[in-house]
Amino acid sequence: MPPADLKLNNKRHTLAHLLAAAVLELYPDAKATIGPVIDNGFYYDFEFVKPIIKEDLKDIEKRMCKFLPYWSEVKGSEVNAKKAREIFKENSYKLELIEEIISKDESITVYTAGVSAEGGAAPFIDLCRGGHAENPAKEIAPDSFKLTHIAGAYWRGSEKNKMLTRIYGLAFNSKKELDDYEKHLEEAAKRDHKKLGKELDLFTFSDLVGPGLPLWTPKGTIMREILDDFVWELRQKYGYEKVEIPHITKKDLYEKSGHWDKFKDELFKIITREGHVFAMKPMSCPHHTQIYARKLHSYKELPQRYANTTMVYRDEQSGELAGLSRVRCITQDDAHVFCRHSQVEQEVINIWDIINTFYGAFGFVLTPKLSLHDQKHMEKYLGTEDIWRQSEDTLRKLMKSKGVNVIEVVGEAAFYGPKIDFMAKDSLGREWQVATIQLDMNLPERFDLDCNNEKGVRERIVMIHAAVMGSIERFMSIIIEHYGGNFPLWLAPVQVKVIPVGESHFEVARKIHELLRGSFIRSEFDISNDGFGKKVRNAKTARIPYFIIIGDKDIQVNKVTLESRDNGQIGQLTENEVLEKLREEIQKRK
Amino acid sequence: MPPADLKLNNKRHTLAHLLAAAVLELYPDAKATIGPVIDNGFYYDFEFVKPIIKEDLKDIEKRMCKFLPYWSEVKGSEVNAKKAREIFKENSYKLELIEEIISKDESITVYTAGVSAEGGAAPFIDLCRGGHAENPAKEIAPDSFKLTHIAGAYWRGSEKNKMLTRIYGLAFNSKKELDDYEKHLEEAAKRDHKKLGKELDLFTFSDLVGPGLPLWTPKGTIMREILDDFVWELRQKYGYEKVEIPHITKKDLYEKSGHWDKFKDELFKIITREGHVFAMKPMSCPHHTQIYARKLHSYKELPQRYANTTMVYRDEQSGELAGLSRVRCITQDDAHVFCRHSQVEQEVINIWDIINTFYGAFGFVLTPKLSLHDQKHMEKYLGTEDIWRQSEDTLRKLMKSKGVNVIEVVGEAAFYGPKIDFMAKDSLGREWQVATIQLDMNLPERFDLDCNNEKGVRERIVMIHAAVMGSIERFMSIIIEHYGGNFPLWLAPVQVKVIPVGESHFEVARKIHELLRGSFIRSEFDISNDGFGKKVRNAKTARIPYFIIIGDKDIQVNKVTLESRDNGQIGQLTENEVLEKLREEIQKRK
Repeated sequence: MPPADLKLNNKRHTLAHLLAAAVLELYPDAKATIGPVIDNGFYYDFEFVKPIIKEDLKDIEKRMCKFLPYWSEVKGSEVNAKKAREIFKENSYKLELIEEIISKDESITVYTAGVSAEGGAAPFIDLCRGGHAENPAKEIAPDSFKLTHIAGAYWRGSEKNKMLTRIYGLAFNSKKELDDYEKHLEEAAKRDHKKLGKELDLFTFSDLVGPGLPLWTPKGTIMREILDDFVWELRQKYGYEKVEIPHITKKDLYEKSGHWDKFKDELFKIITREGHVFAMKPMSCPHHTQIYARKLHSYKELPQRYANTTMVYRDEQSGELAGLSRVRCITQDDAHVFCRHSQVEQEVINIWDIINTFYGAFGFVLTPKLSLHDQKHMEKYLGTEDIWRQSEDTLRKLMKSKGVNVIEVVGEAAFYGPKIDFMAKDSLGREWQVATIQLDMNLPERFDLDCNNEKGVRERIVMIHAAVMGSIERFMSIIIEHYGGNFPLWLAPVQVKVIPVGESHFEVARKIHELLRGSFIRSEFDISNDGFGKKVRNAKTARIPYFIIIGDKDIQVNKVTLESRDNGQIGQLTENEVLEKLREEIQKRK
Repeated sequence: MPPADLKLNNKRHTLAHLLAAAVLELYPDAKATIGPVIDNGFYYDFEFVKPIIKEDLKDIEKRMCKFLPYWSEVKGSEVNAKKAREIFKENSYKLELIEEIISKDESITVYTAGVSAEGGAAPFIDLCRGGHAENPAKEIAPDSFKLTHIAGAYWRGSEKNKMLTRIYGLAFNSKKELDDYEKHLEEAAKRDHKKLGKELDLFTFSDLVGPGLPLWTPKGTIMREILDDFVWELRQKYGYEKVEIPHITKKDLYEKSGHWDKFKDELFKIITREGHVFAMKPMSCPHHTQIYARKLHSYKELPQRYANTTMVYRDEQSGELAGLSRVRCITQDDAHVFCRHSQVEQEVINIWDIINTFYGAFGFVLTPKLSLHDQKHMEKYLGTEDIWRQSEDTLRKLMKSKGVNVIEVVGEAAFYGPKIDFMAKDSLGREWQVATIQLDMNLPERFDLDCNNEKGVRERIVMIHAAVMGSIERFMSIIIEHYGGNFPLWLAPVQVKVIPVGESHFEVARKIHELLRGSFIRSEFDISNDGFGKKVRNAKTARIPYFIIIGDKDIQVNKVTLESRDNGQIGQLTENEVLEKLREEIQKRK
């Protein structure tokens, strides 16, 4: 979806007013509170005397359509405090808002619509900052919006306040746009990774283990390994080496790194039986500095490139956990390059190449952006303004040299340095923040990391943090939805299903299955008592890329029938032809 | 070392008395407390008025040798309480022991030696249960024992008591045996994995991260991966599948599994920001049950075999941590088989095969033993006596069917079931407990794990726990010492060092190095400015299995000179011959 334009936002805002007008007409005892615009439409929060249900929305929507032709303008005017208090004297919520505006010494504006009351409605007046369609009756098509659902919402978002009823509406420029959006929602729901994850048996959650802590089944684990091996294959070419670290540390490490202050709430903390304070790692960089620091490195040994796919832990709040998108146990495919200033450019270019190759394999289009620090909030960052400017200039120059249109985002840097963040657009057009390259001149200062240079002098080094997938959990959620579970051959946990037509074909089918497995192709053999049709249907439901069917006609000519999930029947092939075809497709990651 | 015989133990015990006699002669103010026999000799704890130092041991040893000829017997006699109190009236330690003996209503015995005082010593009398050489003067050679060192030790092991001085002595049947043992100690010290780990740059510890939490360098990580991949290669053949799990869980999982009670002190506990109690996993079985329990399995899907190399965490006390042998972060190569009773035998035989193949590759000789529960302490175990008998019978029968001499050890079972533990003897003759196969009918009960059997009826299943290396950290410590750092080619983190004789050979040498790396052989290229001799010495110190030398004579004939760490110069070979030779050796894990 493209971001909504100002005009659309104005329409949505006006529709929120129209909704309130309709509700107050139908439920005179209700109180309207606030009604803002959101990504795909609008909502409005009401206090109802008697609760309403979803089915009531149809009537409200009808009433909105009835009023709409009479809303030829939404007229704003400034009022004084007295007048404002008078207009909304029966609505304690609006009065609270008015007092707030007064206390800030801001001007109070109200907007009125439906001047002509022929539609049966009194002119509707609302406390509002403005931003409306000029002529709603003309601009807003009655079939371009829709009330969708209701939900509970606390007044001003605080659970100490009264629970109100929120009515949600979708709104677009036309019926076509609305329909498209609803189709998109439907498709996204079908592809929901939580639903597909269960159907395809990729991961599970246990009430005993707890929320946000996914357990990976054999099939899900195969996918995780393929993804991680792919990243490793790319990294290995650029001289990366694997390292391994524990998931905990004494508090001391994070006090020195600054994570203790920055991550405080999100750190899982442990008091040992001897009374020491430990923490679970929320990221791997501080541990990796300790591997680098085990000895004095000669400049000849640099860059040292440490890759480490390992789980990190963050104490997320229960309410924020969602499937694999937000978890407490995050598998990071983290790497840290320890190098000299003069080596930064080449190293970043190499990482960029790795990221491009990786995301290219999935058909993702990447947009890089430069995440900078916020000069106005230096208290949020480690290090001096000078170091920050230097680091940011390095990345900016580099992005320009790559011919990239540099999108700069202030305030999005890591607390230790600026970064290039990559956005990936998926098959539904949604954008996800994925890979990251971070330049860090601060942790090397804190941990006193250096090398012995050509002159035999200690020289401060630089760290580059780089994650390709970022979080394997989140990346899995993205590709499950991106592919809708129809994984390409190289990635599919089960690549081939071997299906004998009848019992007499079992023996030959089993041999094919074993041949495939011996050739490291992930084959399953259907030994169920199901009929042939059901077997094929099962294989299709499981979204297996290929099935091999063995019947009389195949055995007679010493061939097998190959069928593709995506392209239908391929025909009769010899065993070797099948192997060659599959191997080539796997190798090319098509 | 063979276990000491009774006669040797008696000699060691007598030497402890002789030590006390010598100390009391030289330091009349000292008080002797207790002096038992240990694995390689004896010790005795004393209270000295003025502290002694290691250098004083020579004099004490001399005095022992002076007394020895006069110790032709050690005579025991029973005494009554009054007499005992009288003899030791000036030694509060012995008096405490005497009161203890009296309170238990046991008889009090004292042993006297050195009856003839010609050696200058008064007859030495000690409170003792007996067990001495018949004629020490004849049986004990003066050069078969040696005082080695002193250490502080609390009276009766409690830090609330006074700190005493412990004098240690080695003692064997002959000077030859003593010398052999000392050589053995020296060799073991040279092979100490903590020392070699640093020299070979395999792992490191950081004060900021904390003790017991090793950080794995690139070289150490390569070895860990090779070992783990080897286990996986063997398991894969038997139908194992990998799964993955987080390192934490809600307390609930362990309350249900019984680990909360059993592991209480050793569990790292976490209170989340929302106040929930979590724990770090001390083992993976409870998590794996939750993967199995994600759906109802048909009997056709059994056995389910889940393999998972993952770190587990135990809150060990600081004083007990030692290099890689005892750590807080343990990488377990754990697997759990969920199967029917009728499948247990075949599954255990398969695991046994995996263990045999794995340990065979290192030249370890394995001795299995059957670890049973202790009927007298059923409170230590889950489940009923019936279930235990059934499980133990299954394993016993199986061991017999393998033609193994069944060594049974009561009280060594896991709290959930009996096990077969494998002891491995290393190149220094030391025995290590390594792999384990555990039969578990209790956790399936607790977690209500079953399958849908042929009759469509729920059937309780069995779990088999199997670790091959057990802890990768501990296994690494064992093989580092087993090989003394001279790892076989397949396991060596650097397999080949390519050494150009002079600068003019750099280019050809680099090509060879790149050819090797392209062929997945772990080659290093010596680009240092060191002289040729030093380069070779460096490669030898680093214990690299092969070095390839490139000089004029090699380039002339388009060959390279191959030299082996273990077998010296091999000669001139073509590139292809080298590749073939190395590949074959790696593949055979020679």
